[in-house]
Amino acid sequence: MELSIGKEEIFSGRVLKLEKHTVTLQDGSTASREVVRHSGAVAIVAVSGSKLLLVKQFRFPVQKSMLEIPAGKLDAGESPEECARRELLEETGYIPKDLRKLATIETSPGFSDEIIHIYFSEVERFQDPSPDVGEFVEPVLIDTKEAIEMITDGQITDSKTISGILLAFLGKESDCDD
Amino acid sequence: MELSIGKEEIFSGRVLKLEKHTVTLQDGSTASREVVRHSGAVAIVAVSGSKLLLVKQFRFPVQKSMLEIPAGKLDAGESPEECARRELLEETGYIPKDLRKLATIETSPGFSDEIIHIYFSEVERFQDPSPDVGEFVEPVLIDTKEAIEMITDGQITDSKTISGILLAFLGKESDCDD
Repeated sequence: MELSIGKEEIFSGRVLKLEKHTVTLQDGSTASREVVRHSGAVAIVAVSGSKLLLVKQFRFPVQKSMLEIPAGKLDAGESPEECARRELLEETGYIPKDLRKLATIETSPGFSDEIIHIYFSEVERFQDPSPDVGEFVEPVLIDTKEAIEMITDGQITDSKTISGILLAFLGKESDCDD
Repeated sequence: MELSIGKEEIFSGRVLKLEKHTVTLQDGSTASREVVRHSGAVAIVAVSGSKLLLVKQFRFPVQKSMLEIPAGKLDAGESPEECARRELLEETGYIPKDLRKLATIETSPGFSDEIIHIYFSEVERFQDPSPDVGEFVEPVLIDTKEAIEMITDGQITDSKTISGILLAFLGKESDCDD
């Protein structure tokens, strides 16, 4: 248990807040904790037949284009299910047929409170994508087996995407002839 | 591609730095990006016989105790392999027999450049744990199968831990009688 005995609010931006806390530790000593506050997000392992619906986008912090499951930040007052439907439709133009919760993960619990609710769903095409202004996201359909290979050979490196896909297909892609 | 045309350094702390960038997007418009810089980390899926060696610790940002694979931040000038050996020994008292790279993941590429190098290794007990001052980490041995169940039923929620364990045992824990 670590108890905050002092909080400094350093930054409040569009996506995140930064706080610095002084905390008491279990031996009575004190330490500082830098904490990034985030509103939370939702991601969807979206399956269309034998394919996975992923999105490709440039990620500024790591300066590269990444292949990820569709995802987005929770709006104020929005439920995770509503957010999943909205983000999937905006980024890909697809709608879910049967949203099912897979997991809620913490991405970096050492310095951030960001959680991501991950859903699984069969999806179907509904309309053209309608991303937010300034958002450049390309939907990509990839064979499920190929996507798993892209995880094991290091082409897919996003933690929510790895967690979501491997959780969704746990035990379904193994070679039972071993 | 997003190109930085202006950088504001907001905070530089013990664990992270915060920058705010103005970037040009592919349509020529501009946007702001909040970026958390992190030195990177290493984590180890550590196997002792049929058990996984995990660590339990309180995580201040999410205000709960979490079960994770042993991990820690890279020191300046330290290689990921050196960091893996050091953190495993400090947190658990175990040493690796055969470090093998599993993956390098990005934990939150939307707002942070944190990467985690994940290794797999058979491990053996060498000495008592010697955690850093102010670090309270409890080593826990858990059956591999039980750890995977703790992922699917939501008791293990840390993204590097889910990614690492599922990658290490991909295709090895399925029920081939289906």
